[in-house]
Amino acid sequence: MSIKATAMVFTATDQPFANKQISLKDIDSNEVLVRIVYTTICTSDLHTYTGKRSSPTPCVLGHEIIGEITTLGKKIKSDYNGQLLKVGDLVTWCVYAYDDKSKMAKKGIPQKSDGLYKYGHHKFDSEDGLNGGFATHCILKKGSTIFKLPDFLNYKQAAPLNCTHATIAGAIRLARYLTNKNVMITGAGMLGLSACAMAKEGGAKNVFAMDINKERLDLAKKFGANKLIDGKLSADEIKTLIPKEKIDVIIDTTGIAAVMEKGLELLAIGGRAIWIGAVYTQPPTQINAEMIVRNLITIKGLHNYTPNDLGFAVDFIAENHSKYPFEILVSKEFPLNELSNAFEEAKTGKHYRIGVKQ
Amino acid sequence: MSIKATAMVFTATDQPFANKQISLKDIDSNEVLVRIVYTTICTSDLHTYTGKRSSPTPCVLGHEIIGEITTLGKKIKSDYNGQLLKVGDLVTWCVYAYDDKSKMAKKGIPQKSDGLYKYGHHKFDSEDGLNGGFATHCILKKGSTIFKLPDFLNYKQAAPLNCTHATIAGAIRLARYLTNKNVMITGAGMLGLSACAMAKEGGAKNVFAMDINKERLDLAKKFGANKLIDGKLSADEIKTLIPKEKIDVIIDTTGIAAVMEKGLELLAIGGRAIWIGAVYTQPPTQINAEMIVRNLITIKGLHNYTPNDLGFAVDFIAENHSKYPFEILVSKEFPLNELSNAFEEAKTGKHYRIGVKQ
Repeated sequence: MSIKATAMVFTATDQPFANKQISLKDIDSNEVLVRIVYTTICTSDLHTYTGKRSSPTPCVLGHEIIGEITTLGKKIKSDYNGQLLKVGDLVTWCVYAYDDKSKMAKKGIPQKSDGLYKYGHHKFDSEDGLNGGFATHCILKKGSTIFKLPDFLNYKQAAPLNCTHATIAGAIRLARYLTNKNVMITGAGMLGLSACAMAKEGGAKNVFAMDINKERLDLAKKFGANKLIDGKLSADEIKTLIPKEKIDVIIDTTGIAAVMEKGLELLAIGGRAIWIGAVYTQPPTQINAEMIVRNLITIKGLHNYTPNDLGFAVDFIAENHSKYPFEILVSKEFPLNELSNAFEEAKTGKHYRIGVKQ
Repeated sequence: MSIKATAMVFTATDQPFANKQISLKDIDSNEVLVRIVYTTICTSDLHTYTGKRSSPTPCVLGHEIIGEITTLGKKIKSDYNGQLLKVGDLVTWCVYAYDDKSKMAKKGIPQKSDGLYKYGHHKFDSEDGLNGGFATHCILKKGSTIFKLPDFLNYKQAAPLNCTHATIAGAIRLARYLTNKNVMITGAGMLGLSACAMAKEGGAKNVFAMDINKERLDLAKKFGANKLIDGKLSADEIKTLIPKEKIDVIIDTTGIAAVMEKGLELLAIGGRAIWIGAVYTQPPTQINAEMIVRNLITIKGLHNYTPNDLGFAVDFIAENHSKYPFEILVSKEFPLNELSNAFEEAKTGKHYRIGVKQ
């Protein structure tokens, strides 16, 4: 008797997900079959569902996934850290599989390799259906980067690792030295809260969180922010609330032009702005180039992350899971077969994340 | 009999320089008295003369200076490289004197230290008159960074070192690895030509020079550029003239918003834009933040340079003075007492540099 897997397939904007049964086949020697145990709905999943982002259709959404190894391909012996893998291990993995011989991988930007295979972003068909988080199983392709998860992490802490926390780990890498720095995080969503916590643990002197939503801002205090800035204030007003030496590092998670513009005005000489939020079409960001030059400002964009960033994120959450209440951000849970309800609930905007339990 | 020094003092826009005689006094133990032998008129000197840049008035302009040591303060034994200094040595020095204990110096940005003393930018008075290049003498203050010049360099090669070439050395430092990279230099003025040569010697696969002036562009070929791009072309037109993998590093010397915007569109994934030209007030540069994020672009502004950058520039010109004809860029020479004529000639725009011989 062949075991069947279930995938909840996205077919069109705002339409119920279609329940598809798929027979599990033998995997290749470089692949790993995982039984998914938990997936969180990322904002970009919601953007596809509501039509703000275009995805291949049909597809299985969901990329903030964790699962237990069901079958290990013969050639897969250990995770990215060299820990031996075995059936039953709880794992996370990079949202993309890539060819480490590709030009971009060799440049240190594997997430932009030619022929990248992205989980939760790939077309669903009968040959390749188990490639997203809203399913019972996922086949990790050749070139996947796997990390074994510590037993003591719960699913709500672990699921967002390979998107939210890994991306922030990349931003923190680009921010470089944080010890004794004044760091500002614009946007106190899931990414912003993760950034507050990582900046705090990175040794920042002050972590300023900025948002227009007071509730979100207040929550940032539990994630390492010690100064809260009302995002409705002007740059000049904010300057009266920050140290005279201004801000050393700004991480922007909003992607809103006016916020990024404001951020640049708050930067100290030699300051760095790391932009990760601007992943959607928008009006131009207006930059005062003279200020960039005279103040020796650095702007760095980041999209996705490297395997090392995910490794950093796993270690970070392992070390700090009891210090920062990340699990409360997954504030509602649905079983997989109620995925359409889960997305409708996500649309209310009341939750940082909704969990889907397989 | 006390020796008199002469300073040609700038008093007001487009006015003849005033010839002032100054008695030479004893110098402090941390100072060096230099007899200036050559100064080139930098574009920023011209901007002050024509009213485009405001400077303290009255002042002695000129910062691209070289001179021979006349008197060494007791505490000054050697140059920045540790070479012993003696009376008669030909030297260049950083355009600023700074306190190495200042906060910004400790951050690696000495050129932005509090209380910076900039040669050719300081108010002239009876107590402090010998502080610019258009004079017979200059007193190097405590905190100056001095480099002994090789005997084999001529004055025209050496004078622009501490502004043009040192700034480009800073830009090349920020550009990081150039080996086998596609590098584009926007603006083929003095800074741009220096950048072409340093990029070429840095191992760039291709050096693209872009300018709207065909004569300037042609000259770039003699300075290491192997591809010439008409600056009037659109980004889409330029894309047909560059490799499919696009440009890894752009150094902008123009400071023109439209040029910087165009440059960003030409950058490869992971590319770096180094902006040094935008040192004047201008309309906002309009940036596509989504492109910055998705293409992992870095933008870095640079103003002035560090002592190490000047050291790099001195070594670079020493090694490559016969390979690239930098001396032809100083295409006319005037004696110090004809400084007003020299500036009037500079206003014609026919010269990269005009030399002033003391």
